[in-house]
Amino acid sequence: MHLIGPGSCVASLRGCFLAGDAESWNEKLEEVVQGIVEGRIKLHEADKILGNANAAALARRLALERMLGVGLSSIGSTILDFEELVGRNIENPIGAVQVPVGVVGPLRVHGEYARGDFYVPLATTEGALVASINRGAKAVTLSGGARARVVYDGMARAPAFWTPSVDEAVRFIQWVRERIEDIRREAESTTRHGRLVEIQPFLAGNIVWLRFVYSTGDAMGMNMATIATDRAAEWILNNYPGTVRLVAISGNMCTDKKPAMINMLLGRGKTVIAEAVIKRDVALKVLKAPPEEIDAVNRVKNLLGSARAGSLSYNAHFANIIAAIFIATGQDVAQVVESSMGYTWTEVRDGDLYISVTLPSLEVGTVGGGTRLPTQREALAMLGVAGGGDPPGTNARKLAEIIAATVLAGELNLLAALAANELARAHRLLGRGEARNKG
Amino acid sequence: MHLIGPGSCVASLRGCFLAGDAESWNEKLEEVVQGIVEGRIKLHEADKILGNANAAALARRLALERMLGVGLSSIGSTILDFEELVGRNIENPIGAVQVPVGVVGPLRVHGEYARGDFYVPLATTEGALVASINRGAKAVTLSGGARARVVYDGMARAPAFWTPSVDEAVRFIQWVRERIEDIRREAESTTRHGRLVEIQPFLAGNIVWLRFVYSTGDAMGMNMATIATDRAAEWILNNYPGTVRLVAISGNMCTDKKPAMINMLLGRGKTVIAEAVIKRDVALKVLKAPPEEIDAVNRVKNLLGSARAGSLSYNAHFANIIAAIFIATGQDVAQVVESSMGYTWTEVRDGDLYISVTLPSLEVGTVGGGTRLPTQREALAMLGVAGGGDPPGTNARKLAEIIAATVLAGELNLLAALAANELARAHRLLGRGEARNKG
Amino acid sequence: MHLIGPGSCVASLRGCFLAGDAESWNEKLEEVVQGIVEGRIKLHEADKILGNANAAALARRLALERMLGVGLSSIGSTILDFEELVGRNIENPIGAVQVPVGVVGPLRVHGEYARGDFYVPLATTEGALVASINRGAKAVTLSGGARARVVYDGMARAPAFWTPSVDEAVRFIQWVRERIEDIRREAESTTRHGRLVEIQPFLAGNIVWLRFVYSTGDAMGMNMATIATDRAAEWILNNYPGTVRLVAISGNMCTDKKPAMINMLLGRGKTVIAEAVIKRDVALKVLKAPPEEIDAVNRVKNLLGSARAGSLSYNAHFANIIAAIFIATGQDVAQVVESSMGYTWTEVRDGDLYISVTLPSLEVGTVGGGTRLPTQREALAMLGVAGGGDPPGTNARKLAEIIAATVLAGELNLLAALAANELARAHRLLGRGEARNKG
Amino acid sequence: MHLIGPGSCVASLRGCFLAGDAESWNEKLEEVVQGIVEGRIKLHEADKILGNANAAALARRLALERMLGVGLSSIGSTILDFEELVGRNIENPIGAVQVPVGVVGPLRVHGEYARGDFYVPLATTEGALVASINRGAKAVTLSGGARARVVYDGMARAPAFWTPSVDEAVRFIQWVRERIEDIRREAESTTRHGRLVEIQPFLAGNIVWLRFVYSTGDAMGMNMATIATDRAAEWILNNYPGTVRLVAISGNMCTDKKPAMINMLLGRGKTVIAEAVIKRDVALKVLKAPPEEIDAVNRVKNLLGSARAGSLSYNAHFANIIAAIFIATGQDVAQVVESSMGYTWTEVRDGDLYISVTLPSLEVGTVGGGTRLPTQREALAMLGVAGGGDPPGTNARKLAEIIAATVLAGELNLLAALAANELARAHRLLGRGEARNKG
Repeated sequence: MHLIGPGSCVASLRGCFLAGDAESWNEKLEEVVQGIVEGRIKLHEADKILGNANAAALARRLALERMLGVGLSSIGSTILDFEELVGRNIENPIGAVQVPVGVVGPLRVHGEYARGDFYVPLATTEGALVASINRGAKAVTLSGGARARVVYDGMARAPAFWTPSVDEAVRFIQWVRERIEDIRREAESTTRHGRLVEIQPFLAGNIVWLRFVYSTGDAMGMNMATIATDRAAEWILNNYPGTVRLVAISGNMCTDKKPAMINMLLGRGKTVIAEAVIKRDVALKVLKAPPEEIDAVNRVKNLLGSARAGSLSYNAHFANIIAAIFIATGQDVAQVVESSMGYTWTEVRDGDLYISVTLPSLEVGTVGGGTRLPTQREALAMLGVAGGGDPPGTNARKLAEIIAATVLAGELNLLAALAANELARAHRLLGRGEARNKG
Repeated sequence: MHLIGPGSCVASLRGCFLAGDAESWNEKLEEVVQGIVEGRIKLHEADKILGNANAAALARRLALERMLGVGLSSIGSTILDFEELVGRNIENPIGAVQVPVGVVGPLRVHGEYARGDFYVPLATTEGALVASINRGAKAVTLSGGARARVVYDGMARAPAFWTPSVDEAVRFIQWVRERIEDIRREAESTTRHGRLVEIQPFLAGNIVWLRFVYSTGDAMGMNMATIATDRAAEWILNNYPGTVRLVAISGNMCTDKKPAMINMLLGRGKTVIAEAVIKRDVALKVLKAPPEEIDAVNRVKNLLGSARAGSLSYNAHFANIIAAIFIATGQDVAQVVESSMGYTWTEVRDGDLYISVTLPSLEVGTVGGGTRLPTQREALAMLGVAGGGDPPGTNARKLAEIIAATVLAGELNLLAALAANELARAHRLLGRGEARNKG
Repeated sequence: MHLIGPGSCVASLRGCFLAGDAESWNEKLEEVVQGIVEGRIKLHEADKILGNANAAALARRLALERMLGVGLSSIGSTILDFEELVGRNIENPIGAVQVPVGVVGPLRVHGEYARGDFYVPLATTEGALVASINRGAKAVTLSGGARARVVYDGMARAPAFWTPSVDEAVRFIQWVRERIEDIRREAESTTRHGRLVEIQPFLAGNIVWLRFVYSTGDAMGMNMATIATDRAAEWILNNYPGTVRLVAISGNMCTDKKPAMINMLLGRGKTVIAEAVIKRDVALKVLKAPPEEIDAVNRVKNLLGSARAGSLSYNAHFANIIAAIFIATGQDVAQVVESSMGYTWTEVRDGDLYISVTLPSLEVGTVGGGTRLPTQREALAMLGVAGGGDPPGTNARKLAEIIAATVLAGELNLLAALAANELARAHRLLGRGEARNKG
Repeated sequence: MHLIGPGSCVASLRGCFLAGDAESWNEKLEEVVQGIVEGRIKLHEADKILGNANAAALARRLALERMLGVGLSSIGSTILDFEELVGRNIENPIGAVQVPVGVVGPLRVHGEYARGDFYVPLATTEGALVASINRGAKAVTLSGGARARVVYDGMARAPAFWTPSVDEAVRFIQWVRERIEDIRREAESTTRHGRLVEIQPFLAGNIVWLRFVYSTGDAMGMNMATIATDRAAEWILNNYPGTVRLVAISGNMCTDKKPAMINMLLGRGKTVIAEAVIKRDVALKVLKAPPEEIDAVNRVKNLLGSARAGSLSYNAHFANIIAAIFIATGQDVAQVVESSMGYTWTEVRDGDLYISVTLPSLEVGTVGGGTRLPTQREALAMLGVAGGGDPPGTNARKLAEIIAATVLAGELNLLAALAANELARAHRLLGRGEARNKG
């Protein structure tokens, strides 16, 4: 029996139970609430006791309201059906946060997969961000649009192995190389769309990392890669005749959710590039800055500034755009860390501005994870990429191209705004200076 | 007249207009929708034409549904009142995404500001994350709780200046040093709680960065820092007798939303540390792994693995916890990039496990930005940190301590789970091997 | 006629001319000296005027002595024959500096190429360095010796190309991939021992790097790689039907003489690992420190300390050993930068100490460059690696193994010394404290 | 009695003993040689047995020649007097390597300390390096010379301390801050010229680094800093009332002989900048490349290329120049690692080329270490910086300025050569293409 469904009684779950059951339900609910408050019932036990994830969410929320003396009715006001989500996307839920979604567009993209004018949903609470990217999108579109290309696609998981010596480590790697077909068979037996592309070995003394790289269809693929690698590792450990121990199925050379050069050089997820040539008059009229000044800002800020700061990332604010699209479309938001790393490059060409953005490690998917949730799925649908593509992988790559083009728009606008501001300031100060000098 | 308010007609804004106005409203709305569809009206023009941000959001949503052939009713089902948000938190809104919120707790924290047992809201779509952190929290709390300390607090903004020569650059820096009181006066004139703490100068040839560092009360403070620095820069440019130009008010040595060593070494936002001593029996019973093995995983994975990968971050998954709390509490999610950087350190002490997490650059606030939104504000209230603290700054620091303690719990659990998995696997394989050998 | 030869008249070249020629020679010499002093003759013109490189060296030296009012007789006292060196190893010579050579040994090495006890020449002016490494060598040798393995071998040169767009860049890379055999033929036509192993392409927007990797026999191979790549690039530019320009034959992704993660991950020169298990009693008696303390120092200093400093290198002082061997054996000393990068790893195993050193980018050769010089060649001969190996490449790899083993000895000793010092200090302070308490 | 002195019998020490003593000496020598060969006498025991460091060097050399079957007469042919050097600069010496010294100049420098035209000695075996830098020096000097400025001066040593908890760590740092005067007194009691400038504290969990920064007069100062810090640490450990242990007197945050961002941001040794404006006609005539092309190479190679490679260093070949001057002038060559890190920056100004080099961590001295050796001292004398300056520190800073100016010359020339090569190639290929098209 599906008592509490999406959309049915959003404002207050409390009054939602069917008439006949209401009294006993309410008693049971109250019992659980009070049990949590008094510490007899743990937060995660509510689900089992109440037999319904939405009711458990309500119970937890009410208990927390009582315990903490705060109202949580806004968090409680959600369309989410926790019967669908608990164990797949969340545990101990009490409701949802709502993040406003603004739209940027039309943004013209000439990708291999994404072709046409797009309206891009951005979930953010940072004022001016959507407007800012939108102005960039306008300049890009007026200049004929952004080209975008996915130049690499592969999800990595790198278990760390201990061996007794470098000799054993070398033998181990050699053995793995020779059994690649066995290992592939094991790894791929766990997945429908995942394909083992290669295993990249690394050494530090007697420690070995095997960086398994997969193509993962339309899924971002980290879970797929972990499960497949786990199976492969089990087979390896079971069959390798020498001495080796698995220290951790993730040995940090993957690298997941940390900034790392290995991803910048070898890629993780999609390596995607977007570029545009912004016509001089568009730069001047829409962006209020000449190409030479935008180019100068990029050079001092994004290249020299990042170098001087010891950054791994040479751009102005990729992360703003990545975070907003990731939240909107149900991506793994912790992966904003490496997905937002990359390079902005500009050139002045016959008075126009060439600009490109390169994202070596954009980790996105259109199936699995948070993409299943109703609002997130709608956001994907806006881009024409909800669910699996045909053939598999095309939706995720299309999404990557659209994201890169949006990053391009955001980057272009911020560089131009910085240039325009300082130009304006210089004129203003010059004016004052002249006035003062005249006085 | 406030036609469309929060909670009043969440499921469909379309039917929400008051009876008398309905017809004309609907006509006007339809006109705007059709105008957007036909390209006569731009997305952002809806607000002005309709005179109401919620109606404009509806118009944009309907237009996009029509243009793109998709349903966006879930995104439209929001409690957000865009009259409150447009221009401050979002532009071109069409609704909101809903991110499920799970709760971890009780988590015992012995901070300077955060003291007691906390229930921490996490907004995520990654299955098992909340359960995983919760188990870590249990182990921490059973071991007496986590100590937490904010050891640095300062928000930075670093404009880049161009000078003609290194001599001029040196003179400029010297001049700025001597005018620090004037500059402070200017900078602080723009803010109530912001205080200029220091200016850190950096040079590369003739290019100068002045890294302005502020204490910003309970605000995360980036906007505050930008506005204050902008005023200070204007004063500097207006008064410096030599030759200098401002290239960009942010010259990437701040460093905002990019991973950078300058933040790791000098701090940005809060530098916060949490630690706990996990009793051996708690490790064995709750986490199913002995301290020695957890310590070994930390060393191979978090230290050697990150080093080998060329990472700036030596931990397992700080970003997972940071992202989930940031979304829940209305922080600037793009700042997950640097806020999630840091070090996990473990020691075995008389059979127990000492574990610490160090986050050099945690950028959080309890006022401003997304903290104003209803669901996010409730999440802050759960932690007792909604709005400004007394004295100012104490709420933000309390939040930082709670976050660090939660990161500790998450880190502890993942390291232990990795260790326990591989221990279990080793036993299983050993069993098989023995069985095989017997056969 | 070979007037001035090595060793013939080291103390003063001035008196070296044959009797009959002396007067006119001296006149000519004086003329050149005076010409240089007065600015009429440039430093590099002396060679042509005097027709003899040694005489020119003398003339320059005398001129500089006169111009600068300093004595340079020690620099002048050299066995070097500049007739052999000018244009190949030096220009504008005036003599030589002498760097003392100390010897470490016997150091037992179990490599693939280096087997036996070695006496390693170290050219250094840093007091205690040789003695320190020697103690480490003793501990290693007493424990049975060091194992060493070259796990990668390849010299890289990465030209940077400009293309008009990412599409062109992708086409260009694809075209290069398909012409790999043509390119190999061109590249290898310039060299006897060099073999093109692979081309690793990298992209940032429209900019392409092609990282050419070569096996280079016993030569360090940078010049070989540059010449071969130059030829290959010329062929590419001449044959590629699209639009591409070569920006620089070295585009800094090689990476030569700068610290860079690309070398750490993909290797440059030799990737070599050495390891040893130091017996507990050897650690205690020779190194005065228990394995647990040495391990603790490695962990806090080399892993956590380097991480905290934002270093790319996780060791104590690889560079000391690398620099000393490089100077002694005529390597390219500027390559100490990347050749000294690497990881020290320790484990306590049943009370003994396992220690390994991993050098991902050790660039060494036994032919070419400074290896031709008489003293440097003798230093190579001490290790049994002067000149080309049979088959080619074996001498360079043998040298790499010996260097890694020596680095191991140096690293072991310093870690142990740090541990022993602090242990001793702790005891001393404890003693004082006790004494004080008694007082 | 000083039997074996510098210069007295360089070609063969063997025949140098005075007549009367010769027989017995030779017997004793032979005894030691044979003892070493047979393993009865260790290498370092020769000094004690023979009572003379030069004789011991001879004995070791002869023994090694016999044992290894190689001739080492060139290494033996040295002017070095090991009686002066053993224990201060070398142990177990057998002679010296000779590295050719070429001269670059005149190079005009407008520094704060270095003013005038300099002739810079470079010890290298890399052909074309001296000629190449010389051409750069010519371009610089013809354009009016290089400006150079030391903008920071401080040598750092950073011991790592263990504390039981972050609270104790914070207390410890606070306590140290309050005792800065006591600590300074202790530290400075060990040195005549060293002054403690500041202590920079860093934390990772319970681990504390105190980065002691000293001004060290004309010494490079690492030993001075170590000794002073050791004394200070002893005082701290003896007086701190809480619980703290010293793990290692160097905790890798110094950072010595490893590439590290901490040195780039906070400086170590001298931070020095040199710059020049190269006139357009000089660029075209001397360097054969227009400023625009040199600027483009710098941007693609040194900025984007280094960024893409994950380098910490944004230049073309600082290390070549640094290594050559370091060997020539007796610097600690292992410090080439961090001393060669830095940024090259170019701008086109009204058709001329502005170029600067920034070296954040140039570690040099004119007293101590290898600067005492005869050839090295002469090299310093050529630059007018042999020995201590008046006031102390001025010679080391003058040297730093000269080095930076030489690095500028080398960098300029290589960038220009790369640009000119590719320009020439483009013309050549264009010619061929045209010819072919005509055909």
